[in-house]
Amino acid sequence: MTAERSYVEDHRDQLHADLDAWLRIPSISADPAHAADVRRSAEWLAAAFTRTGFPTVEIWETGGAPAVFAEWPAGDPQAPTVVVYGHHDVQPVDPEELWQTPPFEPTIRGDELFARGAADDKGQLLFHLLGLPAHLAATGATAPAVTLRFLVEGEEESGSPHFADLLRAQRDRLRCDVVVVTDTGMFDRGTPSTCTGMRGVIACQIDYHGPDGDLHSGSFGGAVPNPAAALARLVAGLHDDAGVVQVPGFYDQVVPLTDEERALFGKLPFDEAGWLAGPAQSRAATGEAGYSTLERTWARPTAEVNGIWGGYTGPGGKTIVPSDAHVKLSFRLVPDQDLAAIRAGVDRFVAERTPAGITATVRFESGGVAPCRTPLDHPALQALVRAMSRAFEQEVLYTREGGSGPEADLAEILAAPVVFLGVGLPDDHIHAPNERVVLPMLYKGAESAAYLWSELAGLR
Amino acid sequence: MTAERSYVEDHRDQLHADLDAWLRIPSISADPAHAADVRRSAEWLAAAFTRTGFPTVEIWETGGAPAVFAEWPAGDPQAPTVVVYGHHDVQPVDPEELWQTPPFEPTIRGDELFARGAADDKGQLLFHLLGLPAHLAATGATAPAVTLRFLVEGEEESGSPHFADLLRAQRDRLRCDVVVVTDTGMFDRGTPSTCTGMRGVIACQIDYHGPDGDLHSGSFGGAVPNPAAALARLVAGLHDDAGVVQVPGFYDQVVPLTDEERALFGKLPFDEAGWLAGPAQSRAATGEAGYSTLERTWARPTAEVNGIWGGYTGPGGKTIVPSDAHVKLSFRLVPDQDLAAIRAGVDRFVAERTPAGITATVRFESGGVAPCRTPLDHPALQALVRAMSRAFEQEVLYTREGGSGPEADLAEILAAPVVFLGVGLPDDHIHAPNERVVLPMLYKGAESAAYLWSELAGLR
Repeated sequence: MTAERSYVEDHRDQLHADLDAWLRIPSISADPAHAADVRRSAEWLAAAFTRTGFPTVEIWETGGAPAVFAEWPAGDPQAPTVVVYGHHDVQPVDPEELWQTPPFEPTIRGDELFARGAADDKGQLLFHLLGLPAHLAATGATAPAVTLRFLVEGEEESGSPHFADLLRAQRDRLRCDVVVVTDTGMFDRGTPSTCTGMRGVIACQIDYHGPDGDLHSGSFGGAVPNPAAALARLVAGLHDDAGVVQVPGFYDQVVPLTDEERALFGKLPFDEAGWLAGPAQSRAATGEAGYSTLERTWARPTAEVNGIWGGYTGPGGKTIVPSDAHVKLSFRLVPDQDLAAIRAGVDRFVAERTPAGITATVRFESGGVAPCRTPLDHPALQALVRAMSRAFEQEVLYTREGGSGPEADLAEILAAPVVFLGVGLPDDHIHAPNERVVLPMLYKGAESAAYLWSELAGLR
Repeated sequence: MTAERSYVEDHRDQLHADLDAWLRIPSISADPAHAADVRRSAEWLAAAFTRTGFPTVEIWETGGAPAVFAEWPAGDPQAPTVVVYGHHDVQPVDPEELWQTPPFEPTIRGDELFARGAADDKGQLLFHLLGLPAHLAATGATAPAVTLRFLVEGEEESGSPHFADLLRAQRDRLRCDVVVVTDTGMFDRGTPSTCTGMRGVIACQIDYHGPDGDLHSGSFGGAVPNPAAALARLVAGLHDDAGVVQVPGFYDQVVPLTDEERALFGKLPFDEAGWLAGPAQSRAATGEAGYSTLERTWARPTAEVNGIWGGYTGPGGKTIVPSDAHVKLSFRLVPDQDLAAIRAGVDRFVAERTPAGITATVRFESGGVAPCRTPLDHPALQALVRAMSRAFEQEVLYTREGGSGPEADLAEILAAPVVFLGVGLPDDHIHAPNERVVLPMLYKGAESAAYLWSELAGLR
């Protein structure tokens, strides 16, 4: 047994006590009535960092809920710097009546702890407050092997509206060699894994205008442009019969999956029938020909219709040629697709395909999220995999995520590779009633973190 | 000058007086507050029929507003029987502030009479009350050359909800050799014309169901069926690139336009640029390749999107794969397309094209309207054209209508050919503020009717 593991096993009570205290604070960022609780949560965490030994602990104000910053310089001034990202706010709890035990009264049943935020994300932050002392105990040092800068935001469950601004404002103090995101999960309990990339996204609305008013379909039907029919043709043209997106240049910058990546995805014990019947609530897996479901959701770009409307949508019928029709589209993007290039491609797609008599307007939502990816052979990723392998005593496999949160901002603004140390499980019920965390997963997370700081010390 | 014309010219005052009296009754069938006015309108008309000499005049009750029936048997018991159709109710008047003179205070300016119902349809019924005495005066008979049965309904502007039932209930008393509809118009003031056919219509809603709930497009997008995208593909497949409807068997029963019909349509002085900028409010004429705009709207069947909706349609974006999407379609039909066959074709179209993972439901609206057409060489149509040619002293051209009202019921339930004697003009502003009728058109209508009963006497 390693010194790290034995430290973790001997100090579980501290983790349990921290969980019990912090999870009682209902830090729901989406509900203005809980603003004081979110602040209380930040203050509790700041105190916990201080108690753990961090010499610098600050509460960072934003335009919204406060973030917590904690820094512990490495003993060796030449050691690499690591930013660890997480969040201290939680999802709302409704429908509360579906909770078996109250969401803010942490309750242990077997090896599971039930509470809102247990997995997302308080539990995953707290394992670091056990893992870091284990690291120090095992190395016999008074400072970590790398400079650690924790940044724990308070608005992740509200879409991180001030996070990018905070990163830009504090860029100097967040300078780092690698970002460790500790807000994700593993493939399943028996399959330790780490995320190696996330899809980005851009979204737009396309408005089609035909006749200047709704027209009687008897008097005019068949002889004037119908914007709803034209829009259907435009949308239908987004994909060919093989599911390949037809936006000009859409795939030009896509980094193809390597044979190794596809082989590693293939090792994951994915139960497609269970996925369809369960989370996907669907009766068929479909999509781009030649790719598996995991590849389609993780590593292939998409064009998706989020909403469409136009003409008469009430009860019964109304025989009109409508004046207007609209569609909301979003495009999930993969490395190295460039947001501006894809926007330009969509503009061109619409311009080239809009028929005579229809006026088209394309409006992109501001922002958009760039895709991110850490190559499998990146030294930081390999350090993470070594640390996790030691903790889990199993091969660590690779996943990706189909969507992304603030991780893309971290990668872009801090200009550092992002790796993911998360021990959440697909059935943790995050964002739903009866959220739980599996306590042994937190112990493994703590042990992984304890190894990780040593592994990353050689990064520079 | 014919005796008919000189009678009409000598008795214009009676027409003017009738117009002034009847148009003051606000017989708005769509507004329950005007129910008593609609009844008063029926009673006024019944009295006018009696005054004109009709031996049988009855008010027929329906489930809604009353109709007026008036019968005058021919002197010759072997003479054909003609049912004349019109309506005594009128459209609402809002926005009333746009009327130059109050809608129910008939006002003559130049040769135009302004009032709600002036053209649609009171003026066109009243010309018969001048034309019939002219016919009698010219022929020197005490009874018309054909048996005349006028049926004037009171709910046409409300969609004739009880009309088909009334026709079925009174089928014996409405037995006839030909129906003359006196509720339509001519191509323009300088182009006397008659309608020879109307398109029918069926309508349906198609519901597409994909995942059992809205899904996160990051986690699931690209790997599950998107019902909005699938529905767009279905709708896009309704037409090929030449605008030809792809519903199986759609054109199997279409009677093609003859070269003569196309040539006659071609003689009409159609101003496409004016039509686009005016009533069509559109920037391009489009549709089935190889056909003119008039042919497309009058004599070719269509598949039209009346409304489409699904997914998120609010402000901003929501990156979901929606669970459901819906479209309302209507199909304008031409002779001899059969409603049941087209419905079956649409069912098959949807069944064949709905992809795996999508559940489709097709619901047709009840009813539907059959297309109708009177062949150019039909003796009743030729009799009408001779009568109009004598009155207008011009060649009479042929039009059709893109939609249809109760005419289809008349043709089907009474099993008789339908011809159209209408003198409305496209710029009469029916259904709009400042409805008017051109008085000289009514005189020509009266004269045409006076000739028509003689022309139709030879029908049997």
